[in-house]
Amino acid sequence: MKKHNFSAGPCILPQSVLKQASDAVLNFNNLDLSLIEISHRSADFVAVMEKARNLVLELLNLEGKGYTALFLQGGASLEFLMIPYNLMKKENGKAVYLDTGTWSSKAIKEAKLLGEVAVVASSKDAAYTYIPTDYQIDEAADYFHCTSNNTIRGTQMQAFPSTKIPLVCDMSSDIFSRVLDFTQFDVIYAGAQKNMGPAGTTLVVVKDEILGKTGRNIPSMLDYQVHASKDSMFNTPSVFAVYVSMLTLQWLKDLGGVAAIEKINNKKAALLYNEIDSNPLFEGAASKAFRSKMNVTFRLTDESKQAAFDKLWQEAGINGLKGHRSVGGYRASIYNALPLESVAVLVNCMKKLK
Amino acid sequence: MKKHNFSAGPCILPQSVLKQASDAVLNFNNLDLSLIEISHRSADFVAVMEKARNLVLELLNLEGKGYTALFLQGGASLEFLMIPYNLMKKENGKAVYLDTGTWSSKAIKEAKLLGEVAVVASSKDAAYTYIPTDYQIDEAADYFHCTSNNTIRGTQMQAFPSTKIPLVCDMSSDIFSRVLDFTQFDVIYAGAQKNMGPAGTTLVVVKDEILGKTGRNIPSMLDYQVHASKDSMFNTPSVFAVYVSMLTLQWLKDLGGVAAIEKINNKKAALLYNEIDSNPLFEGAASKAFRSKMNVTFRLTDESKQAAFDKLWQEAGINGLKGHRSVGGYRASIYNALPLESVAVLVNCMKKLK
Repeated sequence: MKKHNFSAGPCILPQSVLKQASDAVLNFNNLDLSLIEISHRSADFVAVMEKARNLVLELLNLEGKGYTALFLQGGASLEFLMIPYNLMKKENGKAVYLDTGTWSSKAIKEAKLLGEVAVVASSKDAAYTYIPTDYQIDEAADYFHCTSNNTIRGTQMQAFPSTKIPLVCDMSSDIFSRVLDFTQFDVIYAGAQKNMGPAGTTLVVVKDEILGKTGRNIPSMLDYQVHASKDSMFNTPSVFAVYVSMLTLQWLKDLGGVAAIEKINNKKAALLYNEIDSNPLFEGAASKAFRSKMNVTFRLTDESKQAAFDKLWQEAGINGLKGHRSVGGYRASIYNALPLESVAVLVNCMKKLK
Repeated sequence: MKKHNFSAGPCILPQSVLKQASDAVLNFNNLDLSLIEISHRSADFVAVMEKARNLVLELLNLEGKGYTALFLQGGASLEFLMIPYNLMKKENGKAVYLDTGTWSSKAIKEAKLLGEVAVVASSKDAAYTYIPTDYQIDEAADYFHCTSNNTIRGTQMQAFPSTKIPLVCDMSSDIFSRVLDFTQFDVIYAGAQKNMGPAGTTLVVVKDEILGKTGRNIPSMLDYQVHASKDSMFNTPSVFAVYVSMLTLQWLKDLGGVAAIEKINNKKAALLYNEIDSNPLFEGAASKAFRSKMNVTFRLTDESKQAAFDKLWQEAGINGLKGHRSVGGYRASIYNALPLESVAVLVNCMKKLK
């Protein structure tokens, strides 16, 4: 029996994608070769990379709008460094960051190595359980950076500030989950291992016109222009992770795209939050106005029932429900590929708890 | 029928490894979950990472000798930057490089961004067809860097200079292929996609005592000490690539380790070079004294026979024999996982050519 997988990442992927990926590891495109033993410059793999990049722009409705999609390596953690390298001016460089959790804080730390960083607002004072909305962005800065969804505390930005300076967003944990006007962003980046694919590749979507303006001599591997000029093949890409991402993006397109999955995601989140709010044995961990539709964090109101609840969901075949080790409690990650049925199974366990 | 895969990288992996990898993508360790949808912090994956790192040290005979094995991302190309970041002093930093081909040149380019780089010798004057051996290493420099095997031209270092300064070696294309005294090196790095696994992870083996001495404030993702302190889990690792690398390392250990595979590699190389030298229709591309046992580069002595030869090997089920696009000719990459039988098939095609 397949588990109900609420893991926060790496996390659930569509079963049809896993099946195709498994097959390709043995024999890809009927080449009598494995996907992972062919040249990344072979026609078969170049087609995969091209399709993956095109699907990204298509699903985000950014085709023909001056954006490039890149599949890189190093996760969002390396983007924390690449963003200032590519966008912060060498002379008197300055960036503005919104601090909404662990990942924002890490991004801020790396940016400080390259120039001045102003934190316009932070929810650290309330253990990152909300998203600050009352702040001014200094438009003399080189860019504004925010994190759209915070996996650990379970908060999500419901709106993005309008600003004249480049808007950079870490969407690692909610990309492709909801319809936004993606043209408002100048750089979007995301580690693949939530809604897009397996760990091992990082998506960067960048508005071409904002690059090349820092006056820096950027190391090749950290330079978006280098990767763009080589169609994400400056060096050997993470072949398997790009391929599985392509399959997942195709799965999403076949399903009806981001608008279609958003409807399903809304249903899943409503079902679960409704139970949290109506069942006196549970309480939500994040401020209601900023609740994430990807990572639902909650606690027992009576800690003594923990063993009983853990037994219930484990026996129901649920995996990955424990909260992040730094905060405890529970976290149900309900990413795109998680079926509504799995949420129903969890809600049923919550109802059964006495 | 499985192809005879002479691809230069990504390249052939053991068939038993591909089978296990394919199975794990569907159901890993009987968890009823895919390898690529479980947390990298789960006990099952932590065990994979630990085993992979231990196997590296065991196979290189570096256990208990003050070395750490890291599985990172970004390929050798990112190491070109990480090496100077971690080893070149911030004040008056200087490094010494040996230039033996395209990859050395790229390494030199990135190092120059961080300090002074002296190229002690280069074989560029002879199209990189040999390895310079007559040079002095300035022992006031912070480290010496070389490339052990050059995939494009098919040359390989037969010996390494002895020096008092840290010896850094890019072994991307011949690691685990031959017995060396690996304690002579202070850093060894290698993109996985030749003898170790699929593209998507990079092995770094570093002597602990040489780190932390540059006076630099190193970005987290570029800092070997950060990765070492987190057991290669500072951020989400490239799960699939690390797992397949672990399987390949276990396959090598079961086979008898590096000494055992070296004997097979010697046989494969001897068989092929013998044909190149004895068949008047072919000639080797690299200087004999520096011929690679991993990438055998050769040409037809009569170009008009190209179509006939290409037909012969293609009909024999051979894949990936074309030389690198920058040099032409042929290149038979005969990495660890390529069976002797495949070389025999190629030699047979060469013998058949009239």
